[in-house]
Amino acid sequence: RISWISDVIVVVSPENTETMKTIIEKYGHKKVTVVKGGITRHRSIFNGLKVFAENEFSSHLLQKPEVVIIHDAVRPFVEEDIVAKVVMAAKEHGAAGAIRPLVSTVIASAADGCLDHSLERARYRASEMPQAFLFDTIYEAYQQCTDYDLDYGTECLHLVLKYCKTNAKLVEGTADLWKVTYKRDLYAADSIIKDNLSQQVCVITNVKETLAQVGFLLPESLKSQIKVEAISQSLSKNDSHLQNIISGQCYNFVCVNDKRCAIQEIQELVDMLEKSNIPLLYPVVLISVHLDISENNSFSIGMEDLTMIKKFARETKKKNILVYGLLIQCKVCNYL
Amino acid sequence: RISWISDVIVVVSPENTETMKTIIEKYGHKKVTVVKGGITRHRSIFNGLKVFAENEFSSHLLQKPEVVIIHDAVRPFVEEDIVAKVVMAAKEHGAAGAIRPLVSTVIASAADGCLDHSLERARYRASEMPQAFLFDTIYEAYQQCTDYDLDYGTECLHLVLKYCKTNAKLVEGTADLWKVTYKRDLYAADSIIKDNLSQQVCVITNVKETLAQVGFLLPESLKSQIKVEAISQSLSKNDSHLQNIISGQCYNFVCVNDKRCAIQEIQELVDMLEKSNIPLLYPVVLISVHLDISENNSFSIGMEDLTMIKKFARETKKKNILVYGLLIQCKVCNYL
Repeated sequence: RISWISDVIVVVSPENTETMKTIIEKYGHKKVTVVKGGITRHRSIFNGLKVFAENEFSSHLLQKPEVVIIHDAVRPFVEEDIVAKVVMAAKEHGAAGAIRPLVSTVIASAADGCLDHSLERARYRASEMPQAFLFDTIYEAYQQCTDYDLDYGTECLHLVLKYCKTNAKLVEGTADLWKVTYKRDLYAADSIIKDNLSQQVCVITNVKETLAQVGFLLPESLKSQIKVEAISQSLSKNDSHLQNIISGQCYNFVCVNDKRCAIQEIQELVDMLEKSNIPLLYPVVLISVHLDISENNSFSIGMEDLTMIKKFARETKKKNILVYGLLIQCKVCNYL
Repeated sequence: RISWISDVIVVVSPENTETMKTIIEKYGHKKVTVVKGGITRHRSIFNGLKVFAENEFSSHLLQKPEVVIIHDAVRPFVEEDIVAKVVMAAKEHGAAGAIRPLVSTVIASAADGCLDHSLERARYRASEMPQAFLFDTIYEAYQQCTDYDLDYGTECLHLVLKYCKTNAKLVEGTADLWKVTYKRDLYAADSIIKDNLSQQVCVITNVKETLAQVGFLLPESLKSQIKVEAISQSLSKNDSHLQNIISGQCYNFVCVNDKRCAIQEIQELVDMLEKSNIPLLYPVVLISVHLDISENNSFSIGMEDLTMIKKFARETKKKNILVYGLLIQCKVCNYL
């Protein structure tokens, strides 16, 4: 996702290595190397760093970077901006890490389970990820540190301070750096992703009069809630406007038409989406609205169309494109 | 909600006092006194405590309690169990507070924005709420503390340690004590509430054969996902089984019937729910399924029924009971 990052090392516990490799292949990640993790946080990170310095964990040695970024997979919403900031700070200071204000007061407990003392909240910060280091600095710290550090430590900034006398630059991070830790965090992550994906919708209608009207009214009514792009023409593979919308990360499409079988048009859109690679990141939602304005079309014929779309949808789902069919018979106004 | 708590003092900023009073009235809270907050956390808490000791903030002095619990409104999912634990510990030790493991390492920054030192995560805890105190202890601490404490301090446990030499007992809390702080926390809170409310459904069907079958098949198919109570009889106000289900905090009801107009039965259920006071806490969902198995009923007649339910639902919504009508015409299988 970030072009100036040359290699991504994913450190995974041995039992999950195969799952991770499947994910990397499925989503076409190119820069990723999988490394087996250790039994503690520091041992895992050390294993990851060794890929650039030792032959033990990888068949081919990757080129040693000037700066290395350490990040947690449980902080999925990190923005490029903060990554760039810690990298620049690390280049200058040797080490840098994102911090956040403390949400709760931190206290130390005595041996009897009672309060020993509390810390003044304003003087302390929560150390978050990402952190960045000059590769030579962090690698030296890991080479010098004790087994006790490797087994019980959690803080990389502490290691470079202790073993390399490097005082890391602290960079104020944004709220989205939070760690997906509890079940409630999964709920929150789910909602944030859905929120981000539903910022924009593209409504595509063909040129006939009634449809053009729907194609006009639908975007108008959606505009108050969401960014809407409306295209009033038949789909064509060379439509550069539509191409631009797709590459602008639009994940929602509504196609309104009155043809008996709209599969071909939908197929063309699916082809364009597939080529764009955007369904690799998140599912694309495509709603095919079949507006039936003829008088003689029976209910069961509409059902046949839907059955066809259902079959088609089963195929596109494998490509992470979710196709839904909506049949509107205007005469009796049955909604399916 | 907790019977052994005699008074609840809600400290609210002056501009929100009216809103809070409206909420208290709407939901019929009986034990609540609203007090105007101060400009800092400690000043607000102090104002709350004064209700039991001074006439300044309330027209009538409330009876001074032995133990007082301090809690944040932004931690809505606190369980009675942890409240009881901190209260018992406070009775014994003079003060007690809930703690949680640290999610991130805590660090101190130097004046130049670089790392000064990091704390060993295992030795420290996050101080959370609820906390409990012997009233005389915490009140004395607030009376003795300085303006600096009142303006910049955040930790009540610190005040009783400093001014009353009371080392608070620390009680390990559960993950649901977390503070609703960021937008993502609202998403999480919303999902947790919905999750809790959808743990149980009650299916009510009348006695005719076809319906009894639906009334049997529906609970069976739901059982794999949710706790289901099925009642196969007409509603009556004296049904003690149904009464038990309602008082057991069931928030979801499905009524299956074949009468032309089911409003009367639904009305009886709504009356029972209203009397139980459970809709005051969270919305109750009531789905009226009208199974139309006659051959001659036209589509438009079914629509009339739904229009009636819609009108009825508009009224019950004010009571926090959400009524939905579902018309199933078996002949042509139109789903509305």
